[in-house]
Order: sequence, then C-alpha cells, then structure tokens
Amino acid sequence: MPEPGSESARIAALISGLPSGEGVIVGPGDDAAVLRPREGRDLVATTDAFVEGRHFRRDLLTSAEAGVRLAAANLSDLAAMAAEPRWALLSLVVPTSWTQAECQLLERACARTLAAAGAAIVGGNLASGEGAFSATLALLGDVERDRAWKRSGAKPGDVLAVTGVPGSAAAFLALALWGNPPSRARVPHDVVERVVAPVSRVQFARSIAATGGVRAAIDVSDGLAADLAHLCAASGVGARIDEGSLPGDEALRAAARALSAHAGQERGPLPAAEGEFLTRLQLGASDDYELLLAIAPAGWADCERIAQAQGVPLTRVGEIRAGDERVLRTTSGDERALDEPGWDHFRNGS
Amino acid sequence: MPEPGSESARIAALISGLPSGEGVIVGPGDDAAVLRPREGRDLVATTDAFVEGRHFRRDLLTSAEAGVRLAAANLSDLAAMAAEPRWALLSLVVPTSWTQAECQLLERACARTLAAAGAAIVGGNLASGEGAFSATLALLGDVERDRAWKRSGAKPGDVLAVTGVPGSAAAFLALALWGNPPSRARVPHDVVERVVAPVSRVQFARSIAATGGVRAAIDVSDGLAADLAHLCAASGVGARIDEGSLPGDEALRAAARALSAHAGQERGPLPAAEGEFLTRLQLGASDDYELLLAIAPAGWADCERIAQAQGVPLTRVGEIRAGDERVLRTTSGDERALDEPGWDHFRNGS
Repeated sequence: MPEPGSESARIAALISGLPSGEGVIVGPGDDAAVLRPREGRDLVATTDAFVEGRHFRRDLLTSAEAGVRLAAANLSDLAAMAAEPRWALLSLVVPTSWTQAECQLLERACARTLAAAGAAIVGGNLASGEGAFSATLALLGDVERDRAWKRSGAKPGDVLAVTGVPGSAAAFLALALWGNPPSRARVPHDVVERVVAPVSRVQFARSIAATGGVRAAIDVSDGLAADLAHLCAASGVGARIDEGSLPGDEALRAAARALSAHAGQERGPLPAAEGEFLTRLQLGASDDYELLLAIAPAGWADCERIAQAQGVPLTRVGEIRAGDERVLRTTSGDERALDEPGWDHFRNGS
Repeated sequence: MPEPGSESARIAALISGLPSGEGVIVGPGDDAAVLRPREGRDLVATTDAFVEGRHFRRDLLTSAEAGVRLAAANLSDLAAMAAEPRWALLSLVVPTSWTQAECQLLERACARTLAAAGAAIVGGNLASGEGAFSATLALLGDVERDRAWKRSGAKPGDVLAVTGVPGSAAAFLALALWGNPPSRARVPHDVVERVVAPVSRVQFARSIAATGGVRAAIDVSDGLAADLAHLCAASGVGARIDEGSLPGDEALRAAARALSAHAGQERGPLPAAEGEFLTRLQLGASDDYELLLAIAPAGWADCERIAQAQGVPLTRVGEIRAGDERVLRTTSGDERALDEPGWDHFRNGS
C-alpha cells in the first residue's frame, strides 16, 4: 500500500462511525491488514471492479449509488457461495474529473453497504490515473468447512428458483438510455429502486444453506439465461425454464410495455409484442445481483418457507433436467432452445 | 466476477503450468474462490494497483516487467508483515490501446512472480475501460498467530537496517527520463536489474522473523526517509541515520555521478555535489520494495548471519532513538533533521 500515511488517514475517515470488523487484528495503517480466520471455516474470496462508462454512468447513477452497487456485486458473489462477508479491500483509480468529495461518497456508500452485510473495509489503495474512474473491491468471507455452494452439484429433477426480479437492471438501462439526454426519470420507480439499492441475499443464502437443500447456486449478474448456462455447464445437466413462471411485477411489465411502444414508434406500424420484450428482459443480459438456485425437490418447501418468513421474493421458475439442453417452455406450451446469445438484445456493455 | 465463462477460461490459461496453490478448495471458475486457512495462523491481506503513466511507463518497462513489479509491490507488503504469500486476485481495466497479448504477458509475469514466492492466483476480473490501463492485485498470506510484524514496536537503541539498495528505483526514473525520448539505456545495468526484477524479501523476512529479534518493519516503497517517518510515527520513537553507512554500490554511485553531471550541464558552471545526489537517491522517494527493520540489539548478529547465509544485502544504517526527532548524521559528523519532503527531489509521480 503506497502512500501509507495519507492512505491510512483516508481509510480511517472512511470507516469512522462504522462497526469495526470482527477478527481484525491490524486494520488500515500498516503494510497489510492482519485478520483472524474463524476455526472450522473456509475462506471465500472474490473481486469485482466498477469502471465508469462500463459498469456505471454518472448521468444515471450518483457516486454513492455506484458505491452501493460495487458492494452489492461483490456481496452477491459471496451469497452465491453461502458465505458470510467479513473483510474488504477497496482500491480506486481516480482521474482529475472526479472530486475528492465524489470519491468519498462512493467509498462511504460502499463501506456502509458492506457493513450492513457484516463486512469491514480493512485496507485499500488510492491512485490517480487518466481516463475512466475505476473502483476495485476484493471481498473476503467465510463459510463452514466444505459447505460452500458451488455451480456444480445440480441434479436432474432439482427445482430451479430465483430471487427478486431479474431483468430489472436491463430495463433500467434500456429505458434510461432512450433519447437524449439519458434519464432515469422514465424508468418505473420500483425498477430504479432495485437497481440503485439491490437487496443483499447474503442472509437468505445463509438461512437456506443451513437446511442442506441447495445443491448448486450462481449469482445472476450476467442475466438469467447466461447464468443458467454457466450453472448447467458446471453441473453437467440441462434445464427447463417456464416462461409463465418468470418473476415480473407490475414495474417490470410497465418497463416492457414502454420498450415495446418505443420500438413500435421506431420500427413503424407493427409494434413488437410486449410479452416478447418482457421475456427478453427476464432472461437476457442484466446484472441484478440475485441468486439462481438448484434445490433438491425435498428441500423446496423449507426454502420457500424461509423466503416467506424473511420477505424474500423466491420464484420457482423451472427444473434441472438430464442431458445438456436448456429449453424455455413458452406460455403456449411448446419448448424452444434457451440460447443465451438470443437474449442479449439490450446488452450495451454497461 | 462478471463474464464468468470467459473469465475462468482466461484465468485457467493464465495459471496453466504454474503450481496450483495449496489450500485452494475451489479455484477460478465459480462465483468466488474457496480457500482453506491453516490452523493457528492469522491471515494477512494487502492490495496494490499499478496504473499506466503513474506506476509504470510503457516506454520504460515491458508489460511483463510491469507484471513482475506489480507482484513485487504486493509481495513486499507481505514480507514487511513476516507473512507467507498464499493466494491472489488479479483485476485488470484495459483500454483499447492494449492488446490481449500484452495483457497476457503482464498477467503471466505477475502470476510467475507470485508463484515463485508461493502464491497462486485464484480469481480475478477483466473489464474494458477508456484511458489508462490499470492492474489491481489483492494478495493474501498468513503468519503464525500474533506474530505479524508491525510498524509499531520499535524501541530506543534498536538497530535500524535495510535490505538491498534503496534509491535504485528513483535513479532509474531520473536517468531514464532525461532527454527525449526517455530511455533506460543510460541507466547502469545493475540499477535496471533491481527495478525490473526486484528480489522478493519474503523468505528472508520469514527466516529472521523466526529469531524473534525484529521489533518493527516497513516496506520501503515511498523511500527510506518517508518510510522511516511512518515507522517512527507508529512506534512513537525517533531515529538516527548515518549517511556514511547508507547502502550504495558502484551502480548507484554511477547513477548519482551521471545525475550530478547532468544537473551541472543544466545549471551552469557549478555542478552539484555527487555525494549530495547519492544521498538524495538513497533517502528520497523511491519504490524499491525493500525492507526497513528495527532489530533488538541482541538480535542483530543472528539477522546479519542469516542475511549472509541467504546472500541478502542487509545494511545497518542507524538506530532508533527516544523522542520523535529523525536525524541524519552526515559523513562530516554533524546532525541535521531528516525531513522527508526535503528528499523528494526526484519525485515525479511515477
């Protein structure tokens, strides 16, 4: 950690007022942090970076909201392993177009979001650099030994379930990027909320992990179809998704209607079908930080009960099948290949 | 970790042929890595970022050399805690001006340097971004419980010792940045070697840690005077550095001579004193990845013996004093304040 004097002062200010992490033997201010692992636990480590213009746009997100989403992206990786977040390292590369106050808003929001999930920032780095702002978080957590969820482990017959409303992030972007200037004012309120303040699934993951019913899990950050493909490939299985059961509340439907109408205006007299837009949002590229779970049939009832008790939207969307085909059973009853590139309609690199 | 398919393939290629890390339960390719801490050990965590134009220049370092130095910067932080490197997460933000091949050279060199010190890359992130290339490494290691070195702990009378030849990095930059285009051809060979392939002090640190004689340690990455100031502040002590005992081999002296002659050409008929330039290099801003140690007087002989046995240049440069003054005892015998900003002559932000 270069520039340790200013660095430690910066991090000290950043974490002041937040709970100091458990197991932090040496915090910010030395060459490295010293942390005490809990006995009988495995360590879980992930890193995610947010680059301005690529993972967030300053005309659509405040710097604090970007900080919240950076924390959420990393927390979601840990939730997908059934791990408890503990410690984090935060590094910024800052161009002159960012003020110190903006950086602090991002860092502070990131630190608060992590603290709410049980993790403390224990170190970091600050560097100036030309071009795009970027923030990289490395997040460490732990999980009972040999109990981390993996992407592998799904078996034919397992229930496929998803938390929240995947597609919300895609809807936010697609609607906000209409017209000039981009604006989130035209995005339904509930969709905006899910994007600027994603709910951590860490606690829910820990609770259902204790039931032993979850056989495989993945974080929905690429989109439901793409992440299902990753899970199926790792598990050596196929899957069926039921179009009619995909989660989609009134806000996401309103977004699909608006997108459909907009496409109609652009394309001429034949507006695209609203339902088609909805399905594309639900399955396509979208970084929602939700969980896709393969649950043993006998374990489903327990998971559903825990979800209800915790107020977590958990939707059964299909099942794991033998083979390697992933199919969508449409509302009209026929099946078609769930080919993830086909759902990349709204993908625009951010 | 977004884009997990390509991500895991990229990391798999990166680490192929390198030793897989010990204690890696789940490596690259899932939402997070799962790692098994060793019982009775504390975890040590650091992060450092290398930003093009700020921490390295492509006209002076190859991408592989930048990767080596990125690993060295992080390894040096762990050496300064007497920790053993174990696992790393590597994140890149890549502008279009960098080819995939250049990125791979950097990553692969970084991974090899880490592997030589016992650490394996277990995850990472790859993002595109406009502007400067940056690479952020988070490095995890471990150390026997409660045995991590800290910056605090130095006591009056302790021997101050330093490894290697601090100032080499400053000499490299100052000489290479003369004239146009910048070129390292005018830098003495041994100085170039110390910059492009810094020797890891991890093993030496582990060995002398076992003697119990080291009371405080810091990584020399800001420069000897500045890092001494950090160590003294953390320990609540002062220090005396003996100018005549500062390490400076023929290569560093040649660099100082060249800088002195160059300054003379620019400034007119009175060339600056060569000795003054040498001292500025030795004490001033310079990221050398060496260790500055405060050693109990009774422990010095053991440390010196181990250094000789391992071929590590270890130089006794002064001692810890009571109070908060840091002074330089010059070769003429008088003492003057060792005020670290005064040694920033060559600092140029990279």
